[in-house]
Amino acid sequence: MPLDITGRRPTPLLERFRRVRALSLALVARMSDADASAQSMPDASPAKWHLAHTTWFLETFILRDHVAGHVPFDRRYAFLFNSYYEAEGDRLARPARGLLTRPSLDEIRAWRAHVDAAIEAAWAGLSDEVLALVELGCHHEEQHQELLMTDILHLFSLNPLAPALFEADMPVPAEAATPLRWIEGAQGAVTIGHDADGFAFDCETPRHTVWLAPHALADRLVTNGEWREFIADGGYRTASLWLSDGWAWARTNAITAPLYWRGEGAFGLDGLRPLDDAAPVSHISYFEADAFAHWAGARLPTEAEWESAASGMSAAAGLDTAHAVRPRAAGRGEGLRQMFGEVWQWTASAYLAYPGFRPATGAIGEYNGKFMNGQFVLRGSSCATPRGHSRATYRNFFQPHQRWQFSGLRLARDL
Amino acid sequence: MPLDITGRRPTPLLERFRRVRALSLALVARMSDADASAQSMPDASPAKWHLAHTTWFLETFILRDHVAGHVPFDRRYAFLFNSYYEAEGDRLARPARGLLTRPSLDEIRAWRAHVDAAIEAAWAGLSDEVLALVELGCHHEEQHQELLMTDILHLFSLNPLAPALFEADMPVPAEAATPLRWIEGAQGAVTIGHDADGFAFDCETPRHTVWLAPHALADRLVTNGEWREFIADGGYRTASLWLSDGWAWARTNAITAPLYWRGEGAFGLDGLRPLDDAAPVSHISYFEADAFAHWAGARLPTEAEWESAASGMSAAAGLDTAHAVRPRAAGRGEGLRQMFGEVWQWTASAYLAYPGFRPATGAIGEYNGKFMNGQFVLRGSSCATPRGHSRATYRNFFQPHQRWQFSGLRLARDL
Amino acid sequence: MPLDITGRRPTPLLERFRRVRALSLALVARMSDADASAQSMPDASPAKWHLAHTTWFLETFILRDHVAGHVPFDRRYAFLFNSYYEAEGDRLARPARGLLTRPSLDEIRAWRAHVDAAIEAAWAGLSDEVLALVELGCHHEEQHQELLMTDILHLFSLNPLAPALFEADMPVPAEAATPLRWIEGAQGAVTIGHDADGFAFDCETPRHTVWLAPHALADRLVTNGEWREFIADGGYRTASLWLSDGWAWARTNAITAPLYWRGEGAFGLDGLRPLDDAAPVSHISYFEADAFAHWAGARLPTEAEWESAASGMSAAAGLDTAHAVRPRAAGRGEGLRQMFGEVWQWTASAYLAYPGFRPATGAIGEYNGKFMNGQFVLRGSSCATPRGHSRATYRNFFQPHQRWQFSGLRLARDL
Amino acid sequence: MPLDITGRRPTPLLERFRRVRALSLALVARMSDADASAQSMPDASPAKWHLAHTTWFLETFILRDHVAGHVPFDRRYAFLFNSYYEAEGDRLARPARGLLTRPSLDEIRAWRAHVDAAIEAAWAGLSDEVLALVELGCHHEEQHQELLMTDILHLFSLNPLAPALFEADMPVPAEAATPLRWIEGAQGAVTIGHDADGFAFDCETPRHTVWLAPHALADRLVTNGEWREFIADGGYRTASLWLSDGWAWARTNAITAPLYWRGEGAFGLDGLRPLDDAAPVSHISYFEADAFAHWAGARLPTEAEWESAASGMSAAAGLDTAHAVRPRAAGRGEGLRQMFGEVWQWTASAYLAYPGFRPATGAIGEYNGKFMNGQFVLRGSSCATPRGHSRATYRNFFQPHQRWQFSGLRLARDL
Repeated sequence: MPLDITGRRPTPLLERFRRVRALSLALVARMSDADASAQSMPDASPAKWHLAHTTWFLETFILRDHVAGHVPFDRRYAFLFNSYYEAEGDRLARPARGLLTRPSLDEIRAWRAHVDAAIEAAWAGLSDEVLALVELGCHHEEQHQELLMTDILHLFSLNPLAPALFEADMPVPAEAATPLRWIEGAQGAVTIGHDADGFAFDCETPRHTVWLAPHALADRLVTNGEWREFIADGGYRTASLWLSDGWAWARTNAITAPLYWRGEGAFGLDGLRPLDDAAPVSHISYFEADAFAHWAGARLPTEAEWESAASGMSAAAGLDTAHAVRPRAAGRGEGLRQMFGEVWQWTASAYLAYPGFRPATGAIGEYNGKFMNGQFVLRGSSCATPRGHSRATYRNFFQPHQRWQFSGLRLARDL
Repeated sequence: MPLDITGRRPTPLLERFRRVRALSLALVARMSDADASAQSMPDASPAKWHLAHTTWFLETFILRDHVAGHVPFDRRYAFLFNSYYEAEGDRLARPARGLLTRPSLDEIRAWRAHVDAAIEAAWAGLSDEVLALVELGCHHEEQHQELLMTDILHLFSLNPLAPALFEADMPVPAEAATPLRWIEGAQGAVTIGHDADGFAFDCETPRHTVWLAPHALADRLVTNGEWREFIADGGYRTASLWLSDGWAWARTNAITAPLYWRGEGAFGLDGLRPLDDAAPVSHISYFEADAFAHWAGARLPTEAEWESAASGMSAAAGLDTAHAVRPRAAGRGEGLRQMFGEVWQWTASAYLAYPGFRPATGAIGEYNGKFMNGQFVLRGSSCATPRGHSRATYRNFFQPHQRWQFSGLRLARDL
Repeated sequence: MPLDITGRRPTPLLERFRRVRALSLALVARMSDADASAQSMPDASPAKWHLAHTTWFLETFILRDHVAGHVPFDRRYAFLFNSYYEAEGDRLARPARGLLTRPSLDEIRAWRAHVDAAIEAAWAGLSDEVLALVELGCHHEEQHQELLMTDILHLFSLNPLAPALFEADMPVPAEAATPLRWIEGAQGAVTIGHDADGFAFDCETPRHTVWLAPHALADRLVTNGEWREFIADGGYRTASLWLSDGWAWARTNAITAPLYWRGEGAFGLDGLRPLDDAAPVSHISYFEADAFAHWAGARLPTEAEWESAASGMSAAAGLDTAHAVRPRAAGRGEGLRQMFGEVWQWTASAYLAYPGFRPATGAIGEYNGKFMNGQFVLRGSSCATPRGHSRATYRNFFQPHQRWQFSGLRLARDL
Repeated sequence: MPLDITGRRPTPLLERFRRVRALSLALVARMSDADASAQSMPDASPAKWHLAHTTWFLETFILRDHVAGHVPFDRRYAFLFNSYYEAEGDRLARPARGLLTRPSLDEIRAWRAHVDAAIEAAWAGLSDEVLALVELGCHHEEQHQELLMTDILHLFSLNPLAPALFEADMPVPAEAATPLRWIEGAQGAVTIGHDADGFAFDCETPRHTVWLAPHALADRLVTNGEWREFIADGGYRTASLWLSDGWAWARTNAITAPLYWRGEGAFGLDGLRPLDDAAPVSHISYFEADAFAHWAGARLPTEAEWESAASGMSAAAGLDTAHAVRPRAAGRGEGLRQMFGEVWQWTASAYLAYPGFRPATGAIGEYNGKFMNGQFVLRGSSCATPRGHSRATYRNFFQPHQRWQFSGLRLARDL
């Protein structure tokens, strides 16, 4: 890990640490204490909880474990803000997170300042191993920043007043989507997975060989306009397009459109806005993505196909200020576009271990491996993914019915 | 209705109106926006919701219906803050009340001010019929004041930090409870129910005759100390003491003590405090009260027995400032004590219509009559009941498993 | 208890015992082993289970407790066929009764024969106290005979083949219902409850005084034809007619007609048959009965009003052979008709203890008292009630949403 | 498809058809009508339902669709016995299958005879395409034969009488399991999937290339004795061994041993018998198999590893008479043993489409593809798998918590 921990100037890691910690605070700056305390469903968490949990992560795995003499801000917080680390003991039941009106948002901010100061004070003495944990903590917090955005969006979407957290800052483009073109992918033995240069989560390793059959990927994402055609053609009423569980889910929950569509508009962090036909469809479940692909005579890509195609690409930008985010239409251009930065792309691959996968040891080892059932992989990144958090090997994952993330799809087909 | 609506000085009703509206604000003064927005269970509501719903009641049934030209503060609030009035149209699902982080507590305060000002401005022109609705609105709000107190207590009781809303203001008395004495009640034909002098809810009428068998009531409430004996004697483990549904409820929910007992302490609005053996047991369900009475070789009083005994009595005091409330031990004295102002007293009577009962017409008629199944009557009043809200004919009611109110019991027996 | 237990001839009690035991077998004679083993819902039990449970009752409380040397048929059956007697130890969870495909119906018949023979063999030596338990066992089994009929009806009603257990044996009468007339009831102090002459369950005692306000009862039951008017007038769509819980129940379960109505027909033990407009409506819940009464500008009678009016009346007949039963239209006549033998009549009274009520001691004491919450009293008897099981003091009870019994209503009103 | 459909002698397919249809009847010969009608859980079906559904499959897709003039036995049966074919219209809700006490087991047998006779009568005129559907119908019925056995086992396991369907016919061997040896597998590009020679389900195709990393498989299955060590070492109490969902499942359901372990015994179709330490562990979930593999420092094989190793192998025998089945200990021997005929072996592979997979068209196309989420693949076959139904390419699949099948595991590891 290329950290200059001896120099006078802030190291790149310290800069990253400061930037990450600051962005979290910026994201909640327009939230009231009440906004930041409510939990809209068991899958989501209060914004305050995200601020607190990421701080608990740092105070536990850095300060408690590696900085002698650190006095915890409040010993009771470990019970409140541990998420799912069995090795770290009992914790508050997940659906009860919304009942924690105390500590207040200001108290959590004070805790953050306390922990940040302690880490900075200890910085010069942290070993490479511990700095690697700090780096993990940054990536961990970036993940929670995206969840914080999607969770407050979900909360506000259930409020009949349709509140907007941010001003609208994107004009709705008048331009239509470009026609979909197919880009042939690599075939035969290809290598995927993280190659140990730079940060990655354990589940992205080890790098290994897979065999790809002849195939092609769409050059851009599926659009809102195309989704309207799917609906108009009876997509949500045609059982033969759907997985059995998906059909049952759609019937039980009366699903007839993406999560935040409201008539001709779509709800977002800037409130209710007209639907942009050229922009990528978002907030759809795996079940919907898979049904759409069947309807279109295509399929979803596998994660290996996606990663092979994305190899060498990276996100041009990313979330680095607090503002309303919405996925944008693909501009004109050649080759694969919209691989990063618009919506996470459902793949046909279950989230499972790579050959030779070994989870990290200790509590940190609970990070990924224990979720390897019942989930599908999403690739790329979204308009709510923090800057610097995207990479071609990244494996995001959710259950097939979940759709409160910025999730969409790119088509694939056999050749 | 003895209202002097022509005089210069504020009429008693106007004074009452102002006092009621002010007390609600006082009760939430120490709550954060988050405290006031959270909902701990479907039975409870956020404090902010209580403030808003009582305001909706006034704006709807007074200003909208009877004051020409009134402009509603926000037309969307009717959907948010109607509780259960079918005649008033659709409304937010009850369990979703805790998701309304907007409007904020301050916005609700502004709405209250707007409505209060409009009512005061219209006051001189309000007919007697409308003033009767104002009086109903005051009593309605007083009911919600008590719920506001019990709901915030429930929310805080689920917070592992055990926050205290108020300072402790009651020393735990060292004195033991006085020995229980039996006071013989009236027998034969007695008359109960409201006699049309002063305010009453529709369900307290009409006044009618009932026949009482020979019986006696305990001169004081059952105490925490007596409840400890019940527990020590295996009360919660002895099926034969319990109603069948009660036994199932206790097993399913692992009930082994009153709701807020925590070891040797009890949680309250002043946080965790030592248990006072001489004080009345509180926060018990009908199921528990009934089991205790069986264990004690006694029974619960009927509501007619209770009312007959309480006839002519009234509460000495009541909640009129924001402070921590806890039921207090009975002092020495003769005759029936603690009839009002400590804990609501479960009776053996189901909540049903009196002979000749007629609900009010219109939406107001949904106030009581439609809840007449599955509930038991509680009589008296509690330490959280606003001053002036108690009377001998009052019929409070809850389901037999509910116990987040200040609910206790007084024993009765056949003679 | 006036039993001639010394004579040579079978005593009246022995005759009753034999008749009851034989009727149970007759009722299941046309059922297959599968019919007799299935459980259609947790509220219902398999026919086989009824046969077995009533036998367990006799083997336990008569033979085990009072006949020296009795060897139980199979010691494992106590666990399987105890219903709810906590004092008798653990038992099979109620919803699992339908999984007991073994023992077979024939094995249960063999057990019945074994127990019957043992009781007859011991008869001459049974004390009066034990003979009272035999009598209780007869009444207990008669209750289960009615449940057996209603449970098999419910099971068959869920079978898309609409099977008929019995041949149709009642022509649908062409005659219209007689116009409803009001019969004035007693007022002031009246006495109700069992007076200790003949058998009664503990909950019918003690006899006591109640005070009745001026009122009248309808001379006949509400008919199917009248219920059609209620439906046509939007009865199931008018919230203001309903209790709050009833409205929620009707919405959640999409209730729009009595339980077994199927278009213009009604399902019964003789299969699907045309609806008879003049016959009493049946298989309605308390919620529906109460809403109908509101719609009709009337109310349900209290149990005291009903019993006072029925005093001195008794059922002319009753179920004594296995055949299809359906409630019949009221014939012409004067005074109160259809008090017994057609449908149980919902009253406005909650099922609670009479003043001075004391449950029996021991396991038998669990018979009634422990169900005294959340239920309403039904009076009279139905076309499925065994002969000799009806009386004016009888208190049947069910929860307000339950309607798989032969339950209907008679109107009352205040004078 | 190499069918001799012109010869005089019964073709092999006709022989297979007769054998399959006869075996189903043999399997239920010892069941009562009640045994065959009960449903122990929504995942399971009554034996009678299996008999009927397989007959519906033949009557629908062969006789209705391809045999002119066929008169259905009972038109109402399609609604009752369609399983999940959306294209075939509405059907009985799955959890209600146990309420169909009519038609009786004998009526279903008569239906089977009717359909069998019609198919035999039409046989000579069936096209190759239709004979392929007959062959599919045979394989379909074989699948249901295994389910029929596991479903009745589950039902009987819930009966406190622990009934045995069959006599015990296997001595418990005294011999210990052989030491586990590792057999190195193929690596690099290998080909798997069905190659179009002989019958296969659509999901086994197309044959395609996968890349295997260096690995080894255990030469035999994990035994009951080894599972006891896992338990003794706290396997069920050690969160770090488990998937997150698995840990929650085990906690919620109080899982502490394989499904049918009862102390030192195991329940089976021959009743309760002593546990054989050398026999393969059976009736475990994926969650348990995965936790065991972690505990053992190994992992589960992928389905490609398993199939590559099994290539060219086939089951020596299979279920072809009605008798008690239990998995047997591995005998001595070289190389991979117990690949077929003992327990299905959980793999680490999610059940997903092979590259280039295309489901069959029409209702038959609902057979496999629509279940491709949330399930893991099991390979091999079990002691309850009919003879001739096993093959190396076979992909069985269940949800990770399900364990009422004969499911066990074989360990694998990376090299």
